[in-house]
Amino acid sequence: MLPLKLDYRYLQPEISAASIESWQAEIDLADSRVTKGTGLGSDFLGWVDPSAIVAKDEVAQIKTLAKRIQDNSEHLVVVGIGGSYLGSRAVIEALGTGAGPEVHFAGNSLSAHYHTSLLNKISGKPYSINVISKSGTTTEPAVAFRLVRAALEAQVGKDEARKRIVATTDEKKGALRHFATQEGYDTLRIADNVGGRYSVLSPVGLLPIAVAGIDIDALLAGAIDTAAATKDAKVLSNPAAFYAAARNQLYRQGKEIEILASFEPRLHFVAEWWKQLYGESEGKDNSALFPASVDFTADLHSMGQWIQQGRRSIIETFLIVDGGEPSMTIPAGGNLDELGYLEGKELAYVGDAAYRGTALAHRDGGVPSMTIHLPELSAYSLGALLYFYERACGISGYLLGVNPFDQPGVEAYKKNMFALLGKPGSEKATTEVKARLAAQTGDTTVKFA
Amino acid sequence: MLPLKLDYRYLQPEISAASIESWQAEIDLADSRVTKGTGLGSDFLGWVDPSAIVAKDEVAQIKTLAKRIQDNSEHLVVVGIGGSYLGSRAVIEALGTGAGPEVHFAGNSLSAHYHTSLLNKISGKPYSINVISKSGTTTEPAVAFRLVRAALEAQVGKDEARKRIVATTDEKKGALRHFATQEGYDTLRIADNVGGRYSVLSPVGLLPIAVAGIDIDALLAGAIDTAAATKDAKVLSNPAAFYAAARNQLYRQGKEIEILASFEPRLHFVAEWWKQLYGESEGKDNSALFPASVDFTADLHSMGQWIQQGRRSIIETFLIVDGGEPSMTIPAGGNLDELGYLEGKELAYVGDAAYRGTALAHRDGGVPSMTIHLPELSAYSLGALLYFYERACGISGYLLGVNPFDQPGVEAYKKNMFALLGKPGSEKATTEVKARLAAQTGDTTVKFA
Repeated sequence: MLPLKLDYRYLQPEISAASIESWQAEIDLADSRVTKGTGLGSDFLGWVDPSAIVAKDEVAQIKTLAKRIQDNSEHLVVVGIGGSYLGSRAVIEALGTGAGPEVHFAGNSLSAHYHTSLLNKISGKPYSINVISKSGTTTEPAVAFRLVRAALEAQVGKDEARKRIVATTDEKKGALRHFATQEGYDTLRIADNVGGRYSVLSPVGLLPIAVAGIDIDALLAGAIDTAAATKDAKVLSNPAAFYAAARNQLYRQGKEIEILASFEPRLHFVAEWWKQLYGESEGKDNSALFPASVDFTADLHSMGQWIQQGRRSIIETFLIVDGGEPSMTIPAGGNLDELGYLEGKELAYVGDAAYRGTALAHRDGGVPSMTIHLPELSAYSLGALLYFYERACGISGYLLGVNPFDQPGVEAYKKNMFALLGKPGSEKATTEVKARLAAQTGDTTVKFA
Repeated sequence: MLPLKLDYRYLQPEISAASIESWQAEIDLADSRVTKGTGLGSDFLGWVDPSAIVAKDEVAQIKTLAKRIQDNSEHLVVVGIGGSYLGSRAVIEALGTGAGPEVHFAGNSLSAHYHTSLLNKISGKPYSINVISKSGTTTEPAVAFRLVRAALEAQVGKDEARKRIVATTDEKKGALRHFATQEGYDTLRIADNVGGRYSVLSPVGLLPIAVAGIDIDALLAGAIDTAAATKDAKVLSNPAAFYAAARNQLYRQGKEIEILASFEPRLHFVAEWWKQLYGESEGKDNSALFPASVDFTADLHSMGQWIQQGRRSIIETFLIVDGGEPSMTIPAGGNLDELGYLEGKELAYVGDAAYRGTALAHRDGGVPSMTIHLPELSAYSLGALLYFYERACGISGYLLGVNPFDQPGVEAYKKNMFALLGKPGSEKATTEVKARLAAQTGDTTVKFA
């Protein structure tokens, strides 16, 4: 029995078993596009079979590299952005124990403060770098790679630095591949048919995850077993198919926002990863649910009011871990704080009541919700969850009628940025953008009098 | 000249200076409700005059307590949730230098893992506690206070522990006030007329902020100067009035979501604080813009696609720091990564192009945006920003037609949770909720076959 299950009690009355079953033909079509490559974006379906994303010898290589980094480094700087960042961060924050090298993420901002603080922290300490980029020319990671590489070379010399850098990049082409070959770095492969947001279970995610001491075999096994179980796309016995159909039905009914709500702070970056997966896969052609996330119970005291009584435009998905947390009981302490009745009770018991009370309250407030349950937070169950979300996303995107595997809008800011910076090759765009900015007349600044 | 300014160039064509000026009468009315207490929720306007939230002797007491904690503690555990948590965290993450005691936040989740990790981290180290609660009976902080207090007592004994706990609570009544009196804790005052989400510039926020080594006089001065400058509510010379009018006009035009976008990772929790301020103040009566946030440029590679080409339901506010960042230049490194043209340039220069390119791209994509500029990230400018947002929120809520100072929906989950836990006094609710749950028939679980 696979660990993950979905409960749709509080989707009712908007959604019923019968209404979801009416999606079966559309689901079959959408799922066949995912499995048979008959839909848009079919060049990017390498993630569908998680047993094939990494070869056995690649897993062995990843473990060897991870062991070496664990042995010779106190810090690992992972340089990447988007799909080269969020997947490994999500898994490491969810499952990391703090043992082994501390993993830092760079190249996902242009903040001088952030990168200065990072360099100060690792300066003089033994550290390694894993630079992750398909092309090697994405500005943010390319800038960060120069910074951390220069610091490492200054610290240990060029020859030793080369031994502490692993490049995860295109198998054959691109700037980073060429640079890695020239420098003699160890390298891992980014496959042509796996897009960034679907790459967490590939070498992109697996090396940082392994360095953090997480069992990548178990993570992959959770994904592989889930992939096998999704072969049948029957909506009432396949949570991925159900989830895809339900969110599309609610979107057609006029819902605008899906909020992913967890009660476990460690899952914060799983929600961030989910936001990229769904936002980037579906947010095109002027459509799609807006993906948002909250960390409960903290955010019950911030966004909770809006969710309970604001504009009735939202659906909610609870991500719930049912067990496996450390035992922690509420100590004795009188009853002034009205906690006497909870003395000796587990925090998990109180947390479960908070979840159930919240789901009921939000349902009463007009928010349809479903719950994804994991029995515990383990590498195996998290692997299952990641694959569940990926598979459901492919189906959901096809149900929505978009290409779930491209991201044409991401180029827009880059194009303007290159124009403003005067990147060679952008001369025409530079002229156009500068002319547009120069044509902006009139003061639009509001200052305090 | 106050540091904060607002640019509305990319609100055009949806918003023009003339269209905003047509709001002047409504703004005058809304602002008078804030300043004269003639609107709903007028019992909670203590924050309007930031020079009166804390008395001079309270500021002196806060500094004395902060100095003592800095001298005798390596860690400070701040126990609080919602407004007793997000404000100080926002300021400390934005301005903290890492000097002085490390500040931790507890009591904002029911995670056993989180609290176990925290106790492991501080165990055996000298630490202090600042417990912040108006009533002292809110479940999450009450639970956490028992946990960290018990650990502290076990470590240093009850007498010494009492000297390391500061309670920020109601001046006279409530469980925590009584407990603090009984135990002889040092105390700070939560005023009756300042709600949690407006309390960052009161003792609630100021003690943790001062412990982190941040200049609370400068923070307060920024707020006080901004309060003085907002006395005139003319929309074209008052950014708070302008912001309030613009977001309401866009909401009336059908926009559903406001995204706060920063390019500086340190401002992440300022956005979280803003989400509570606006979400809790406005999200009622089935209305209000949904507040969301993104951290650019990271999220240009996750939510960027949705923002550029998804459902055209969003407005965006950029929060931009124009200067004052540390110097960090892009090192030499050939041109394989296509960065040769940026060698020797400041990261801030590239970051500015990223912001300007993004604002232009999103405007082209149909997203109206405005930008709030700060000249640098300092205690003074952040104080100005916090007050700007508070003042604008009061005005905006009145324009929307809600009470910006209550949060009736927050009770709903608590009521159910108490019922499920069997809290004394909740017997009737317990019976009702259990009957409702028992009446839920039919299996609504979807499992993999």
